[in-house]
Amino acid sequence: MNERITRRRVEFSDTDAGGVMHFSRYFTFMESAEDDFLRAAGSGFMHEVEGRPGGWPKAAVSCEYLSPARHGDELEVHLKVTRVGRRSISYEFTIRRGAEEVARGRTTSVCCALTTEGRFRPVPIPEALRRSLAEAPSTPEAAG
Amino acid sequence: MNERITRRRVEFSDTDAGGVMHFSRYFTFMESAEDDFLRAAGSGFMHEVEGRPGGWPKAAVSCEYLSPARHGDELEVHLKVTRVGRRSISYEFTIRRGAEEVARGRTTSVCCALTTEGRFRPVPIPEALRRSLAEAPSTPEAAG
Amino acid sequence: MNERITRRRVEFSDTDAGGVMHFSRYFTFMESAEDDFLRAAGSGFMHEVEGRPGGWPKAAVSCEYLSPARHGDELEVHLKVTRVGRRSISYEFTIRRGAEEVARGRTTSVCCALTTEGRFRPVPIPEALRRSLAEAPSTPEAAG
Amino acid sequence: MNERITRRRVEFSDTDAGGVMHFSRYFTFMESAEDDFLRAAGSGFMHEVEGRPGGWPKAAVSCEYLSPARHGDELEVHLKVTRVGRRSISYEFTIRRGAEEVARGRTTSVCCALTTEGRFRPVPIPEALRRSLAEAPSTPEAAG
Repeated sequence: MNERITRRRVEFSDTDAGGVMHFSRYFTFMESAEDDFLRAAGSGFMHEVEGRPGGWPKAAVSCEYLSPARHGDELEVHLKVTRVGRRSISYEFTIRRGAEEVARGRTTSVCCALTTEGRFRPVPIPEALRRSLAEAPSTPEAAG
Repeated sequence: MNERITRRRVEFSDTDAGGVMHFSRYFTFMESAEDDFLRAAGSGFMHEVEGRPGGWPKAAVSCEYLSPARHGDELEVHLKVTRVGRRSISYEFTIRRGAEEVARGRTTSVCCALTTEGRFRPVPIPEALRRSLAEAPSTPEAAG
Repeated sequence: MNERITRRRVEFSDTDAGGVMHFSRYFTFMESAEDDFLRAAGSGFMHEVEGRPGGWPKAAVSCEYLSPARHGDELEVHLKVTRVGRRSISYEFTIRRGAEEVARGRTTSVCCALTTEGRFRPVPIPEALRRSLAEAPSTPEAAG
Repeated sequence: MNERITRRRVEFSDTDAGGVMHFSRYFTFMESAEDDFLRAAGSGFMHEVEGRPGGWPKAAVSCEYLSPARHGDELEVHLKVTRVGRRSISYEFTIRRGAEEVARGRTTSVCCALTTEGRFRPVPIPEALRRSLAEAPSTPEAAG
C-alpha cells in the first residue's frame, strides 16, 4: 500500500478574507490524508513506538497553489508515498476538485517516540508499518 | 492584580471569507490575554503544579460579537478576573478597537496538573498565584 | 426539518499541547454542522440573498466542556434549531463520542447579505429556507 | 528596504498534541512578517490596486523545521526579499529563538486586485511599492 485518496469539504473556517481557502490550511488537509493513510496501513498517526506514544513531526514541507479552493468545495487529496527512509516517510499530495488540480504538495515526516520528558526522539519506522508500506501498490479500487 | 490589557493586531489568517475575523479566533485572543495575565502574575499558562507540568483547560466560554474586526485592526483585550475558586479562575474580556467595543467574552479555566499518562487532573490553585490574585487591584497605570 | 447529526474526526491540527482538542476548535465543528444543516435544508451557508452573496455571522456563542476530545476521536455533532427569528437562527449543539457527552454549545447566526462594499447587512431569512425550517421535525432516520 | 525582523510569541493555540508549534502555523508567522514588512514599506497586505482592494495570495511556499518551537517561545522572524518580479515578490524567512535557528521558509506572493465578482486577478506591483523595495537595503538598525 502506497497510495490513498481522502475526500474533504472546505469549511468556512478554512477560508480567509481573500474569499478562498487560506494557504496554510492546505497543509492540514495533507496531514489529515497522511493520518488517514497511516490508519489504513494498520498504524496510526499517534502510534505506539517501543512502548511509548509516538508521532510524525514534519522535517520539510512545500506546496504550489494552482487554482483557489473555496468554501464548500469538495476536494480530493491524492496521497502517494515517494520515499521510505529508515526513520522518515516522504509523501506527495495532489489536491483536486473534480478533474481540476488545485494544489500540489510534499511533506516529509519523521517517525518519533515521545520521551517521558515530553520530547520527540526519532526512532526507526516500526517493522509492521514498513512491511505494510512495502506491499504491492494499492489496487485501483483502493487508490480511487 | 486582577486586570490587564493586551494588544494584538488581527492577522490575515484570523479572517474568513466574510471579510472579517472568524468568530472562533476571538477565543484565541482571549486565551492569549489570559496567558499574558498569568505570566504577569508571576505564574504562567503551562505552570508547574506539584512538581508536574500543568495547564488551564476551559470549563465554559461565551462571547457576544458587537462589531466585526478586520484584518490589520489593532485590538485591545481588557481582561478582568471575576471569580477565583479553589481550582478555577473566571475571566471577563472586553475587546476594543479604540473607543469602540468589538466583542465581550467570558472564560472559566480549571487549574490542572498533567499526570504521567498525559491526562489533566484538577488541582488547587498554587498559593503563590492565589496571593498574587488577591493583591490590591492593578493601579490605573497597569490597568490601562 | 430542525435537527441534524454531522460526524467528524478530530484532526491532529485541532489539538493543543495539553494533548486534547483546543477549546476554540469546538466552534468550528459547530459551524461545520450548521453549514451541513443549511445545505440539507436546501439553502447553504454562503447563500444568495436578494441577488447578493450572503453569510451567517455569529451574534453570540457559548460552550461548556464536559470531557476532553482527543486526536482521532470520531465525534457526532447533534444540531437542533432552538429559535427562528426574523433575521437570525439559534442552534443548540450536543457533541458526543459514542454515548458520552463531550461538549454542549449554542450559537446564534444572523442572516446577512454582502453589500457591494464587502460589508454584511442583516436581512430577513429567505422564505424558502424559513418554510423548510418550519416543516415537521426530521424523521428519526434523518435525525440519526 | 528589503529586510525586516518581526517578533512574535508562540501562543497555546499554535501548539499541537506533540507539545510543539504545529508545522502549519509557521506559515502564519511568515505571512504576519510579510504583512508587517509591506506595512513598513508604505503599502499593506490588503492594499488598493488600481482603485480596487487587493491582496497577496501565495503561488508557492516551503519550510524546513530545524528545532521545535514551544508555547511561550519568543520567536524572531527574519524576512528577506529574494526576488521582485513584475507581479510577484519572493521572500526567504529565517525563524530564530535567540541564536538558535528554528525553521527556514520561502513564500512567493502574487500581487492581485479583487474583481467586483470577488475573484483575484494578478496585476503589476504598484510603482510606489516597487520603488520602496528597490531602495538601498535597510540599515543594520532597521534590519536588526
